[in-house]
Amino acid sequence: MLDSLFKPKSVAVIGASTRELHIGNRVIKNLIEFGFKGTIYPINPKADEICGIKAFKSILDCPDGIDVVHMVIPAKLVPQAVEDCGKKGVKNIIINSGGFSEIGPEGEAIEKDFLERAEKYNIRMLGPNCQGIINSDPKCRAYCNFTYTKPDPGHISIVSLSGGVAEVIHQGFSAMGVGTRFYASNGNACDVTIPEIIRYYGNDDETKVVVTYVEGLRDPITFREVAREVAAKKPFLAMKAGRTEEGAKAAASHTGGLAKEDLATDLIFKKAGVLTFNDEGDLINAAAAFASQPVPKGNRVGIITNTGGPAVIATDVLVAAGLTIPPLSEKTKSMLQEKLFKEASVNNPVDVLATGTAEHYRACLDAMMEDDGIDCIYIGFVTPFFVNTESIAKEIAEVNKQKKKPIVCNLMTDKREWTETVKILQEGQVPCYSLPSVAARAMCALVRYRNILDREVGKVKIFEDVNKELAAEIIENARSAEKKILTAEDVYGILEAYGIPVSPWKIAATAEEAIEAAKDMGFPVVIKADSERIVHKSDMGGVAVNITDEDSVKKTTEEMKNKFNVPDLKFFVQKFLPGGLEVIAGAKAEEGLGHLLMFGLGGIYVEIMKDVIFDLTPVTDSEAEEMLSSIKGAPLLDGVRGQKGVNKKILVEIIQRLSQLLNDLPVIKEMDLNPIMAFEKDAFVVDARISL
Amino acid sequence: MLDSLFKPKSVAVIGASTRELHIGNRVIKNLIEFGFKGTIYPINPKADEICGIKAFKSILDCPDGIDVVHMVIPAKLVPQAVEDCGKKGVKNIIINSGGFSEIGPEGEAIEKDFLERAEKYNIRMLGPNCQGIINSDPKCRAYCNFTYTKPDPGHISIVSLSGGVAEVIHQGFSAMGVGTRFYASNGNACDVTIPEIIRYYGNDDETKVVVTYVEGLRDPITFREVAREVAAKKPFLAMKAGRTEEGAKAAASHTGGLAKEDLATDLIFKKAGVLTFNDEGDLINAAAAFASQPVPKGNRVGIITNTGGPAVIATDVLVAAGLTIPPLSEKTKSMLQEKLFKEASVNNPVDVLATGTAEHYRACLDAMMEDDGIDCIYIGFVTPFFVNTESIAKEIAEVNKQKKKPIVCNLMTDKREWTETVKILQEGQVPCYSLPSVAARAMCALVRYRNILDREVGKVKIFEDVNKELAAEIIENARSAEKKILTAEDVYGILEAYGIPVSPWKIAATAEEAIEAAKDMGFPVVIKADSERIVHKSDMGGVAVNITDEDSVKKTTEEMKNKFNVPDLKFFVQKFLPGGLEVIAGAKAEEGLGHLLMFGLGGIYVEIMKDVIFDLTPVTDSEAEEMLSSIKGAPLLDGVRGQKGVNKKILVEIIQRLSQLLNDLPVIKEMDLNPIMAFEKDAFVVDARISL
Repeated sequence: MLDSLFKPKSVAVIGASTRELHIGNRVIKNLIEFGFKGTIYPINPKADEICGIKAFKSILDCPDGIDVVHMVIPAKLVPQAVEDCGKKGVKNIIINSGGFSEIGPEGEAIEKDFLERAEKYNIRMLGPNCQGIINSDPKCRAYCNFTYTKPDPGHISIVSLSGGVAEVIHQGFSAMGVGTRFYASNGNACDVTIPEIIRYYGNDDETKVVVTYVEGLRDPITFREVAREVAAKKPFLAMKAGRTEEGAKAAASHTGGLAKEDLATDLIFKKAGVLTFNDEGDLINAAAAFASQPVPKGNRVGIITNTGGPAVIATDVLVAAGLTIPPLSEKTKSMLQEKLFKEASVNNPVDVLATGTAEHYRACLDAMMEDDGIDCIYIGFVTPFFVNTESIAKEIAEVNKQKKKPIVCNLMTDKREWTETVKILQEGQVPCYSLPSVAARAMCALVRYRNILDREVGKVKIFEDVNKELAAEIIENARSAEKKILTAEDVYGILEAYGIPVSPWKIAATAEEAIEAAKDMGFPVVIKADSERIVHKSDMGGVAVNITDEDSVKKTTEEMKNKFNVPDLKFFVQKFLPGGLEVIAGAKAEEGLGHLLMFGLGGIYVEIMKDVIFDLTPVTDSEAEEMLSSIKGAPLLDGVRGQKGVNKKILVEIIQRLSQLLNDLPVIKEMDLNPIMAFEKDAFVVDARISL
Repeated sequence: MLDSLFKPKSVAVIGASTRELHIGNRVIKNLIEFGFKGTIYPINPKADEICGIKAFKSILDCPDGIDVVHMVIPAKLVPQAVEDCGKKGVKNIIINSGGFSEIGPEGEAIEKDFLERAEKYNIRMLGPNCQGIINSDPKCRAYCNFTYTKPDPGHISIVSLSGGVAEVIHQGFSAMGVGTRFYASNGNACDVTIPEIIRYYGNDDETKVVVTYVEGLRDPITFREVAREVAAKKPFLAMKAGRTEEGAKAAASHTGGLAKEDLATDLIFKKAGVLTFNDEGDLINAAAAFASQPVPKGNRVGIITNTGGPAVIATDVLVAAGLTIPPLSEKTKSMLQEKLFKEASVNNPVDVLATGTAEHYRACLDAMMEDDGIDCIYIGFVTPFFVNTESIAKEIAEVNKQKKKPIVCNLMTDKREWTETVKILQEGQVPCYSLPSVAARAMCALVRYRNILDREVGKVKIFEDVNKELAAEIIENARSAEKKILTAEDVYGILEAYGIPVSPWKIAATAEEAIEAAKDMGFPVVIKADSERIVHKSDMGGVAVNITDEDSVKKTTEEMKNKFNVPDLKFFVQKFLPGGLEVIAGAKAEEGLGHLLMFGLGGIYVEIMKDVIFDLTPVTDSEAEEMLSSIKGAPLLDGVRGQKGVNKKILVEIIQRLSQLLNDLPVIKEMDLNPIMAFEKDAFVVDARISL
């Protein structure tokens, strides 16, 4: 529980300063100006008072059990100060100062030192090298932070390692007149983590929306667990930056972390039900809508506007995102025909015309609130000087109180002139945006969350028929032999142990054995030269396909013997399966997280079209099905141009079995089933590779 | 020349009103409040003065030769009023009133009536059903408009049919503190057109940026011509809405126009060099940058920031759009190492740290202005309370005066608190944006315009070896016979007349003729049942491929005879060309504009992957080459997986010849060359279709 951190009754500032431009001064001023309801203890060895508040020489002179202590002192003084705090029973310390792990080994040592002391005394540490926290609750009003955005009470809670972006987001809400609840930026995050804070926000009833910005996940498994928990309770909005290689590098440079690809993070978000954004503006605007609006029941939007063009823009954005603008019911239409101007358009979008009055807007709002075919209401509202815009705003605010269906408003006005109209909507908690695209995207986010809530998560199926021990043994033997790449025999052995269908195969030492093998499995066959010394078989003529008779087997093996003069040469004989559809599956270990699992069409589809889809293990049945349906070439699986489709159930099962295999054998670094030949009835892996 | 409209010396208002909420009052008030430098003539049969200005009973009482007359009177009174204006030598009339073509036939008749009178007297008409114009030039200050955004003088000129969106855009500039030059919204556009206004803006030296919003083009050919002319001179920014079917419908509903697909408009913009936007916010922000910044020489961005996270976001946006963040020169780096804080990052992005001073910013700015490896400068600027942000702003504004390389600034602050800092940057014409993504996208637009200026437009090649007359004759005969779909013979005849290589073919009446034909062209061949009565040949067994000998020809023709018991049955015999790469080309007439021309990979690539690209005729050599390189499957044309590539030159030539063919034969409605079999050395059309 982070209550004593986020709802402090007392705050001390070690390093409190009388100098205006000092953080140790600013924090105290912020607490005072924000109207902190608790007690403030400035700590300064020299000053008697700071910002008009009695100062103490040392934390040791203060009362016991202070909730939050700020430290704004040089890094090297921090360990002793933490020790002192421990003795006084301080509950939380926010270290605003820098000079710790972010600067290198020297700072790291200091961080380790104070952290050990904090643990000893059971003190929770926020930071170091961080801004701190804000709680806007009128009962608390804690501005334990040196920045400047002073929020009104609200329902959005923000957390981010990056203080810069957290502040940009916070500033965004403030500029819109949207309040926030909690704010936290924890810099180096040596103790209190982002997932811990997110969980705290998730459990806070007053927090209706959780917002975060990340450049990478330090503890992806915990993040996934917490995100899943919180996203099921309330909208959890996240933005991940460092998406490009250069962006990741820039992130690594300012956080001292490692540049990482973002695919795994995206998948964690997706699987956990986090609403992701690539644009901080979209995130801010969506959060503002979630803060006051109910989640829509569906994706059907009713548009009311008093100007045409902007509604066209909004329609484009809404429809492109998969929302619909359905016709209104006949009842609604005839009602509107009666109440609106003769020239007004009563189709959806409803255009009440620039001369449309408050009564007209109200009639539309009421009708759409009643119309069962409409799930959410988009309002376009330009403020012509010749209508009473304030009364229109009042009607919108009034209907908005119902909280029955979400409303977003594209308010097109000069905010410096139409101040009263703006104020009515703002106080009425109607989310207002100056641009139609922006308002429309906020609406899209509301519907996206509905889709997240309604999504089929599926179940991770555990196949009982697998021979886990056998596969583990193969891996273990390979590891003992320090093999990085498994032999074909090992690979097929593992696949078979997990019930993944492979094309029949056999290793033959001689031409005769190869002939026997081919006869056993039935012609045609493929023969591959098998030796640890032959790396690029295919390029070197070590692969012969479509061998149809015994003589050809003999001829092929002899040719290979001549070509590859190696002592350990064997022949990998495998049933040749022409005419199927080539698909591929693959996996790549993600440190501390599991495996990225890939599925796609084989051959040029993967090489040229990059038509592949990824997921993270463990993959559920629904997720495996979604992988199949998400590739662009999905219709090929169902059959096109008169060709029969393939057995998708078997492919789904292969993905699930692969997921189980990877889960059981985390030591697998990379794995490729390329290709899997898929047919109407069945599917077989015909080439595979595993590296450890 | 629209000078007398945009730079009026006198403005009369017919329908001037003493009532506050009347447009006829608002226009006069706007003119007064905006400081109109010319004379205002309120016209009102009853009032002696309006807004303190002497009123006239009738336009006939006013002096002669008034530049602009507003009409704010019922539609039915307009024709006579226009007649009166004509008698007084009025030069331009802005009709703010509605009730004309937008409401149906009745209004259309009135519009036609007044238009005839206007033409008689050589009066130019803006509107009807429009807002009007604004000219912010201190020498003129004409606010001939009833809206409310009062611009500072600036360099952006706006035009749009849709007053709603024009106003939103205008409001966007105003909210940013960016001035505008001209503004025009012409509603029904019965006389003065959008292209005419755009050309006027293009010729105006003070207009540095032209901005428009369209939902469709009324006269695409003129638009293309004007756009090309203007875009070559200055940045011409455009947004097209109605991109989705629903959006197009909404547009049609509020403009009374037809819902249209937007592909042609996009291509017109592209070919003309118009900078297009799908988001009005991006358009506004980009225009603001163009208004004050020079066009960059290239795409290499230097980033200076005092906070890490937002620079990561910016980096992502810039890099994703194809810009680069190159390393700084060693000279620059060592210089910065000397001047910045020890902990600062002197890699690009340069992080001067939150404590970075004006001197630090200045050092970076100077270095990047000097560094030949940097084309444009992105500034991230958060305003910590502990640094002198005003002096930082002053340095940025100072360097911005150089206009050597473009600068955009992501200013992260509370504008209500840091007013002086904001003011310094604003007055210094530094384009400032609150969000990093937004600032980065504005920078991307600057670079996009550089790419437009540098693009290879190419030439429309005219092939002299074509037999235009023959092709025209074939078409003419088909039209006389009222054929909508040409026979194979006609189609191949036309292709051959234009030098488009087709696979050898012949029509045979009998089995014997078919055998002769096959022998002539060489086996293998394809045989298709040819009869007007057989529509879906392929599905009905009317196509036999890969026929390798005379016997098979005989057998095939006999089978077809039995299967299709039709009197006119003939056999279309064609050389069978296996092993090539299937590509396709096609065309579709765009009314009044030419043809949409399509190229792509054949088979499932077009069916499933939709991997096709469009252009508009006439297609230049460079454009044809770009079509080939723009498809996703482009590497297939060059050869993959050991396969040889195809002759791209021949494909480029086929596209150009097709373009010439379509240009010469505009009556062609649709055309498909599907497939064209492409080989290493040559390419042949093996199936084609033309409809009229």
